[in-house]
Amino acid sequence: MTSAPIQLEMHPDRLFSSDKTVVAIARELYEEIKDLPIVSPHGHTDPRWFSENQNFQNATDLLIKPDHYVFRMLYSQGIPLEALAIPQRGLQGDRSQDNAVDPLEVWQIFAKHYYLFAGTPSGYWLDSTFANVFGFKEKLCEANAADYYHEINRQLQSPAFAPRALMDKFNIEVIATTEGALDELKQHQKLTGTDFEKRVITTFRPDDVVDASREDFVANVQQLGDITGCDTSNWQGYLQAIQARRQYFIEHGRATATDHGHPTALTADLSLSECEALFQKCVSGEATAAQQELFRGQMLTELAGMSIKDGLVMQIHPGAHRDHNKRIFDIYGRDKGADIPSQTEYVKALKPLLSKYGNNMDLRIILFTLDETTYSRELAPLAGHYPTLKLGPAWWFHDSPAGMLRFRQQVTETAGFYNTVGFNDDTRAFLSIPARHDVARRVDCRYLAELVANHQITLADAKALAYQLTYGLVTKAYNFK
Amino acid sequence: MTSAPIQLEMHPDRLFSSDKTVVAIARELYEEIKDLPIVSPHGHTDPRWFSENQNFQNATDLLIKPDHYVFRMLYSQGIPLEALAIPQRGLQGDRSQDNAVDPLEVWQIFAKHYYLFAGTPSGYWLDSTFANVFGFKEKLCEANAADYYHEINRQLQSPAFAPRALMDKFNIEVIATTEGALDELKQHQKLTGTDFEKRVITTFRPDDVVDASREDFVANVQQLGDITGCDTSNWQGYLQAIQARRQYFIEHGRATATDHGHPTALTADLSLSECEALFQKCVSGEATAAQQELFRGQMLTELAGMSIKDGLVMQIHPGAHRDHNKRIFDIYGRDKGADIPSQTEYVKALKPLLSKYGNNMDLRIILFTLDETTYSRELAPLAGHYPTLKLGPAWWFHDSPAGMLRFRQQVTETAGFYNTVGFNDDTRAFLSIPARHDVARRVDCRYLAELVANHQITLADAKALAYQLTYGLVTKAYNFK
Amino acid sequence: MTSAPIQLEMHPDRLFSSDKTVVAIARELYEEIKDLPIVSPHGHTDPRWFSENQNFQNATDLLIKPDHYVFRMLYSQGIPLEALAIPQRGLQGDRSQDNAVDPLEVWQIFAKHYYLFAGTPSGYWLDSTFANVFGFKEKLCEANAADYYHEINRQLQSPAFAPRALMDKFNIEVIATTEGALDELKQHQKLTGTDFEKRVITTFRPDDVVDASREDFVANVQQLGDITGCDTSNWQGYLQAIQARRQYFIEHGRATATDHGHPTALTADLSLSECEALFQKCVSGEATAAQQELFRGQMLTELAGMSIKDGLVMQIHPGAHRDHNKRIFDIYGRDKGADIPSQTEYVKALKPLLSKYGNNMDLRIILFTLDETTYSRELAPLAGHYPTLKLGPAWWFHDSPAGMLRFRQQVTETAGFYNTVGFNDDTRAFLSIPARHDVARRVDCRYLAELVANHQITLADAKALAYQLTYGLVTKAYNFK
Repeated sequence: MTSAPIQLEMHPDRLFSSDKTVVAIARELYEEIKDLPIVSPHGHTDPRWFSENQNFQNATDLLIKPDHYVFRMLYSQGIPLEALAIPQRGLQGDRSQDNAVDPLEVWQIFAKHYYLFAGTPSGYWLDSTFANVFGFKEKLCEANAADYYHEINRQLQSPAFAPRALMDKFNIEVIATTEGALDELKQHQKLTGTDFEKRVITTFRPDDVVDASREDFVANVQQLGDITGCDTSNWQGYLQAIQARRQYFIEHGRATATDHGHPTALTADLSLSECEALFQKCVSGEATAAQQELFRGQMLTELAGMSIKDGLVMQIHPGAHRDHNKRIFDIYGRDKGADIPSQTEYVKALKPLLSKYGNNMDLRIILFTLDETTYSRELAPLAGHYPTLKLGPAWWFHDSPAGMLRFRQQVTETAGFYNTVGFNDDTRAFLSIPARHDVARRVDCRYLAELVANHQITLADAKALAYQLTYGLVTKAYNFK
Repeated sequence: MTSAPIQLEMHPDRLFSSDKTVVAIARELYEEIKDLPIVSPHGHTDPRWFSENQNFQNATDLLIKPDHYVFRMLYSQGIPLEALAIPQRGLQGDRSQDNAVDPLEVWQIFAKHYYLFAGTPSGYWLDSTFANVFGFKEKLCEANAADYYHEINRQLQSPAFAPRALMDKFNIEVIATTEGALDELKQHQKLTGTDFEKRVITTFRPDDVVDASREDFVANVQQLGDITGCDTSNWQGYLQAIQARRQYFIEHGRATATDHGHPTALTADLSLSECEALFQKCVSGEATAAQQELFRGQMLTELAGMSIKDGLVMQIHPGAHRDHNKRIFDIYGRDKGADIPSQTEYVKALKPLLSKYGNNMDLRIILFTLDETTYSRELAPLAGHYPTLKLGPAWWFHDSPAGMLRFRQQVTETAGFYNTVGFNDDTRAFLSIPARHDVARRVDCRYLAELVANHQITLADAKALAYQLTYGLVTKAYNFK
Repeated sequence: MTSAPIQLEMHPDRLFSSDKTVVAIARELYEEIKDLPIVSPHGHTDPRWFSENQNFQNATDLLIKPDHYVFRMLYSQGIPLEALAIPQRGLQGDRSQDNAVDPLEVWQIFAKHYYLFAGTPSGYWLDSTFANVFGFKEKLCEANAADYYHEINRQLQSPAFAPRALMDKFNIEVIATTEGALDELKQHQKLTGTDFEKRVITTFRPDDVVDASREDFVANVQQLGDITGCDTSNWQGYLQAIQARRQYFIEHGRATATDHGHPTALTADLSLSECEALFQKCVSGEATAAQQELFRGQMLTELAGMSIKDGLVMQIHPGAHRDHNKRIFDIYGRDKGADIPSQTEYVKALKPLLSKYGNNMDLRIILFTLDETTYSRELAPLAGHYPTLKLGPAWWFHDSPAGMLRFRQQVTETAGFYNTVGFNDDTRAFLSIPARHDVARRVDCRYLAELVANHQITLADAKALAYQLTYGLVTKAYNFK
């Protein structure tokens, strides 16, 4: 908690283990893959950044306010979100609110408490960003906070920091954003015809028209009908409308994948008449929580059927208890660091979908989890059998050095490497993308190096696998080539 | 994925960790126990192999078709089971089906995809078998597939590869097969009077007459009556019949243990009249799924009571969701790589049985799990208290280098070493048995070496423990001496 | 299992890892903090020891009979509790029972089976106690059992082994005992005015008047009324009585914290009329198990409200299935090594309490668990967000070298270090306290050293953190300064 600046150094062997035997092998593997392009098939960057290519404004707006990893830690230690100028619900875009707290003040609070991030991935990503993107030589602390802030802001104004220039600097070959089913994809359409057309693509995330527990669900389904010209007051018309939007996302946003953020992994396979009745319950706003859950489950199966037809890869991200903190949700809304993982079951939950489509070689489903206990018990055994299933990387709270290592250690022996799909950064923190992918590459090299040092695979195997884990598998899994 | 052959070398220090301090100690421990006889108290080899002592036919039939670890991985990567000539349900023994696909072709598909097994225990066991049993110097790949196939087949014909000769070569002191309650034990009876009488024994697995959810349950119970001369239409006669079969297995198959593969660990302790009513429901074929589950639970308690009388050690293997893939089950039947672990609860589930018999020093129950979360939370605390309970080794999907290490790391501190029972290979892949036991020995030596290097136990302790984990505990736990 | 005495040596680098790079850094960190005072904010030592300052009597009564870690292991290996002279229920204090078995005989049984503790924390604590407290040079075994016993007894009689002298020798700055809500705190009052007044404090544990499933609950609530003069026949009077007892514990026992040992982490937030009705059910002795559970949950929320007013820190210790072994409970009563952890859910369970008070900066709740799966999935994400929540250290079965390491590895990346609260020994084994704290210090230094060696934090960070984990955080979390 001292405020005296200390050196900020990103050691070349960082994350390669403490074991010198492993470090030497990991270094050799890392040399082979460190300069491969970044492929980012799932994330939440704003497509406007790339379509408009405007420079970012200031360090606080870019690095603190949108990053719930950062402000949840500060909040956990008693710093009110008000003091961090986190925008309140309904007041987004209200400039007066923005001005209520000086962004430099927010930055100074952050710097004063930067010691809290020791040993966390946020701390690692931020240090990497400060050192590698902005060239700082001193670690952020209370004493140098203002200098840091002004220097970041100064650099952000330069042409080299325009979003498209950063895409090149970061060596990002392709990045996928995520849009709701009703999105017009205006930003993606603006990119058509530019050099970035194939580098910035969308992902179809229909939760807004599938999750009947949302307060805006009924209105969304109506709007879905208006946009598509389908009659979304009945089940068949609703399904046709969703299919139409998928096609729209493929044509206008170059989507290759869908994404589904459900509370559980439940799937269902109801009869047509059951589906029709359940749908009517949901669009009438009268569905119980259990019916809403069943409807989400039925829709996963319907969406899998659509994927078989149009080739979109399905990503399922279950298990977050969203907006656990009622007060924070009431005042600030969604995505404010109050989502908490919960226990997630896959074996029974996925059975209806898998009984229907699990052997269909035209379907690819990428499963994620926030419940690490399922790695060795459920996910690896499922993905090591069903040809439709692949495993997404360690996700969200587990997207960290130790978390990634646990993923490999608990998944590989049963699923092998080839039923995994490389790394996802899943972030809205654009500047952290190189650091996040670098962590994944380093941890994968470490894991492979341990297998080599333990004489379980050869160095040649490890080199081939390092390439696959960094570039080959993701490119194939998301149909990028 | 290159097809150029590379060297196949089993490093003498494999699996001993990357840490040189640990390697040196592990090597010293391993030297002490590596030549101890193999004791294999639980597995699924075919007793006919040993009674008839016929040589095996070809590499595909021996190493691929019966090994669901192998073909589940191939299937997960899109290779149809048809292409691997996996026999279809109802067509077993239909030679025309066998001839539909040339076994060399199957072998070539396997070889082409052998890279998929990198980092998996199957890959490790197969490499070990190829190197140590057949003497190959090159790793299997597409280019050498045919040579491999013919060379294996050539060796399989030699007298040194007859099953009994392999028993000697592998230094297997005793191996237990597993038979259903209705089995006549013809193969075991053939062994009576030979040198292998005490080396090949059976295990009593009564699931076929205990699990009322099986389609053949009612017929099985009737057959149980026919065989034993007991009236299995009533509860008491049914229990007597089971006791009679246990005695038969002891006398004609030298059984020392029973085995129970239930979906859960549920036990029950119902009144006599409840038992009678529940039994009638089950044998009438009218039991609900919940009643079938309760009946299995009651039977575990009944079987524990019988064990106290006849001394058979109970093995409980709960937690597999069997035949998860409906299409595969419909076409190919059981044991086709589609069994998936599921979350398993022990603390409440075992309470009825333990309340009745948990303090009885004449009873020994060996618990297994497919749910690693129970190691430190439930199983080690239970086995560290109840004198009846011991813990079986890391099982099935977790019978792997990292899986075994997690078992020791999560069990030892609460249960100690002496509440565990050594290693089980639980395999039908006969040729992999030496490799599987060798993995267990190496991983145990590594674990012990880490404790020594960390100054938690002495080298002398570690040597004594290495002997116990390899030979002493298993021999005692299964009453082999 | 040999009885030949071997050297007992506590290696200076023990528990620092096998990796020499890590060992060197851990040693440097440990040097900095090894002599810091012991702060023991939660445990079960007997306050009478400190108030009366009588010397302990003999090795068996001090080290075996009260330590359920020790006798549960012996029992698991078939040694009857009778042979260990564990006092039977209702016979506590019956001297004839004590004399039934010679304590030397018990000690000899223990010594003969001391090999069972290899690799367990009990073994480690005992070795440490024998070497560091009593100065033994040989490891305990059958051959030296009697010598050990007499030598311990001899030393126990010396003034240096009086409890207060041991407090000084062990460098215990403060130790908290735990008393039920009805306790008069006579021993703590005797300490008032002595040098130990602030060093031996109490903790308010109201389970006896909150848990309506206890056979003595109704009587306890009545006694609560008698003691406080409140009318505990109604809900408001009952709450006032509890508040009065809290105040009493603060004034007469210098309590800074409360403790709650519930079967689950359930909380509730019922209306006033629901509370009144539920309370009446409970005090009438007619509540169902579900109502008793709901009442405990409602009381956690009520107690949190009281903590906001009086400043007592709340400790929640959920998840033990108490007294699992019916026979042992019937004969010997509580705390006889038959408590088993069970799966514990926090995210939904804590929501009612957190919705009401989770953002209140005047409340501090320290959460513990016996279910390690919740570390990364539930507890770290909760504590990394809610300002009221902190995480207690690895608890009970997990208070061990590997258990503590898993805690840090699974908690730190999401919660950081500053949402944890240092170490608790939670023990009734007074002589083991230095060893237990030393294990925590060594394991924390090892964990920090790994982060340094892996270039995730600097050595300067690690030194600051080592101080926090040993002394800073606990002192702050429990309001000791």
